[in-house]
Amino acid sequence: MPIVSITRIVRFNAAHRVYNPAWDDARNASTFGKCNNPNWHGHNYVLEVTVEGEVDPETGFVVNLADVKRVAERELVDVIDHKNLNLDVPFMTGTIPTTENLVLACWRILAPAVAPARLAKLKLWETENQYVEYTGR
Amino acid sequence: MPIVSITRIVRFNAAHRVYNPAWDDARNASTFGKCNNPNWHGHNYVLEVTVEGEVDPETGFVVNLADVKRVAERELVDVIDHKNLNLDVPFMTGTIPTTENLVLACWRILAPAVAPARLAKLKLWETENQYVEYTGR
Amino acid sequence: MPIVSITRIVRFNAAHRVYNPAWDDARNASTFGKCNNPNWHGHNYVLEVTVEGEVDPETGFVVNLADVKRVAERELVDVIDHKNLNLDVPFMTGTIPTTENLVLACWRILAPAVAPARLAKLKLWETENQYVEYTGR
Amino acid sequence: MPIVSITRIVRFNAAHRVYNPAWDDARNASTFGKCNNPNWHGHNYVLEVTVEGEVDPETGFVVNLADVKRVAERELVDVIDHKNLNLDVPFMTGTIPTTENLVLACWRILAPAVAPARLAKLKLWETENQYVEYTGR
Amino acid sequence: MPIVSITRIVRFNAAHRVYNPAWDDARNASTFGKCNNPNWHGHNYVLEVTVEGEVDPETGFVVNLADVKRVAERELVDVIDHKNLNLDVPFMTGTIPTTENLVLACWRILAPAVAPARLAKLKLWETENQYVEYTGR
Amino acid sequence: MPIVSITRIVRFNAAHRVYNPAWDDARNASTFGKCNNPNWHGHNYVLEVTVEGEVDPETGFVVNLADVKRVAERELVDVIDHKNLNLDVPFMTGTIPTTENLVLACWRILAPAVAPARLAKLKLWETENQYVEYTGR
Repeated sequence: MPIVSITRIVRFNAAHRVYNPAWDDARNASTFGKCNNPNWHGHNYVLEVTVEGEVDPETGFVVNLADVKRVAERELVDVIDHKNLNLDVPFMTGTIPTTENLVLACWRILAPAVAPARLAKLKLWETENQYVEYTGR
Repeated sequence: MPIVSITRIVRFNAAHRVYNPAWDDARNASTFGKCNNPNWHGHNYVLEVTVEGEVDPETGFVVNLADVKRVAERELVDVIDHKNLNLDVPFMTGTIPTTENLVLACWRILAPAVAPARLAKLKLWETENQYVEYTGR
Repeated sequence: MPIVSITRIVRFNAAHRVYNPAWDDARNASTFGKCNNPNWHGHNYVLEVTVEGEVDPETGFVVNLADVKRVAERELVDVIDHKNLNLDVPFMTGTIPTTENLVLACWRILAPAVAPARLAKLKLWETENQYVEYTGR
Repeated sequence: MPIVSITRIVRFNAAHRVYNPAWDDARNASTFGKCNNPNWHGHNYVLEVTVEGEVDPETGFVVNLADVKRVAERELVDVIDHKNLNLDVPFMTGTIPTTENLVLACWRILAPAVAPARLAKLKLWETENQYVEYTGR
Repeated sequence: MPIVSITRIVRFNAAHRVYNPAWDDARNASTFGKCNNPNWHGHNYVLEVTVEGEVDPETGFVVNLADVKRVAERELVDVIDHKNLNLDVPFMTGTIPTTENLVLACWRILAPAVAPARLAKLKLWETENQYVEYTGR
Repeated sequence: MPIVSITRIVRFNAAHRVYNPAWDDARNASTFGKCNNPNWHGHNYVLEVTVEGEVDPETGFVVNLADVKRVAERELVDVIDHKNLNLDVPFMTGTIPTTENLVLACWRILAPAVAPARLAKLKLWETENQYVEYTGR
């Protein structure tokens, strides 16, 4: 049976500050540059959620994408959207809110939540010029 | 010799209705929701056709992409564009016209048609928020 | 007081057939071409709804755009999305469902519905290569 | 002599909170909803800067767009990018940082700064689904 | 009768060099910068062609957009696409090929060619960050 | 430790002519069509540079993307942008400037230049309808 992947895109916007609290200001400034602004800055994030599997002959679906959307909105968008990644998002507490760490946190939440669908890839855009991808490796 | 993939994007728009004729109306409605509308609805589809291979030192091409475009237009766009996937497209007859089934049908047609180029991936967008991918697995 | 315009984008997809029932098949075919397909075709429509006015010093808003979005979704998206423009949409009955006629119908519905906000412009995309605009002239 | 307009797009991202400090929490919450989050949220803003005038026959330019870009970056992007609109941006102090108020502030700064080029329009996107426009009226 | 505008987008790519042959190299370099490269550079141009008029009650069209597309392709795209604006395009001979001058030349050609449709606006993108607009003023 | 990939997008525009100097004109014309125009044509290229690795727990970064951007701009954009691929770009000398050959040349330059970051993929868009990808295979 052929394996098809299917992707739903969700969006949220949030504030964050990228810095390591164990470092002094000079090291934070030289490492993180503008992203270290103490009063925060923010982004419109775009998250592509990809699941994969065989196509069910009764529905023509790998999975009902409406379910994937509902799970992604309940578990991620409702928690992150219009929030501060450093202060307001429980699953990011104690984590430097880079795009890399955010995509890993999203994976840990979504992978079990979309089961039995199999999460195959997350692609997270921070700006229209940069994105990260994670496939569970 | 390095292996490069090269992609051409083609577009078509079509009407469809997603339902299983073996089911009653209630089950179709609960499974397919708005996509089950009896009078059809439609989309602007975007199909990314990826072939791969070694680069020919005489042309600098993996394949002449104009040929891939011509094949994709003749075999797919001319058959699907401004048509009804359930009623007008011979290669979808008897198939629930989900994006998953449509991408598999496109693969079965394109893989031999682009030979000797090797079809590597199809990515089919149904809306700007969802797409499927198939790599022949 | 300065006049600012503010725009909210909404999306819907629908099937339609462009033809004049008063004409014979040959004239419909020569005038409307592929858009005249008897079994319908469809599009992902994108509608930009622009209202304008003075900025309220208490809110910093011309109008609460959440209200514009709610009205546009209730009056237009819920009625058109995943529907057939010829058969399912009451406000298009008896009208050739071109993009021009659709934008005029949307204006007639939205202009009173967004009041007291002043509808300034509608821009309706049928495909990523064509759109119509109407400003109430 | 014909009048042509020419537009340069610049981008910045910033955090903000939309609220009226003269109001109590309940009124702020009911008016501004998610945008009132006390710990901020943020956006990737896109600003289209349009100037207009006659085409200089010696250069073929209305204005050297590199100059417009340099001015917009110095006066706006360098001040706003990776900053907090409420706390870090002098020209927004005491202003509710809605998109409407931000575009008016950008106009007040850019109109004299691009002279003798004539500022004709600013279009400011807050998300890919909403934008404001101002033409100096 | 309401006036609606309708737009068709066409695309072409071309090489050019922006310089004034009456000037010496130093003045060309300081005015035109990188665009003055003697061995040319190039762009993917996007042209939005807008016509306007009343909606014909028999067709629901302002104009058959397929006709506008055909005219724009015959008069502009076939002449410019994959060409050198300075050397290969007759209607640009003796003109500095800035985006401003190119949009004016396109207007002079299209305005009579789309008649009796009334050309209302041309918007020409040179890169995704800059564009010019002309409305016949 | 999980492996994340991270991508930075850079842009440049350039002129080129696709032809094989060892062939006669007729064979060049029939193979390369419009791309063989002797007076050049050009494109706005978009290059997605993807590196991958483990996430550093001290920074939350796979790599500081600002460094990747700086390297890509210094090694590629500054050399190609507003230039002629056939005449002005040393690393393309003697190579047919197809998108395939250009992406391979970019890989040879970037792979060592981004070290110790591991270059994982390059995706190069020539127009919005076609792109090539290379992963070092």
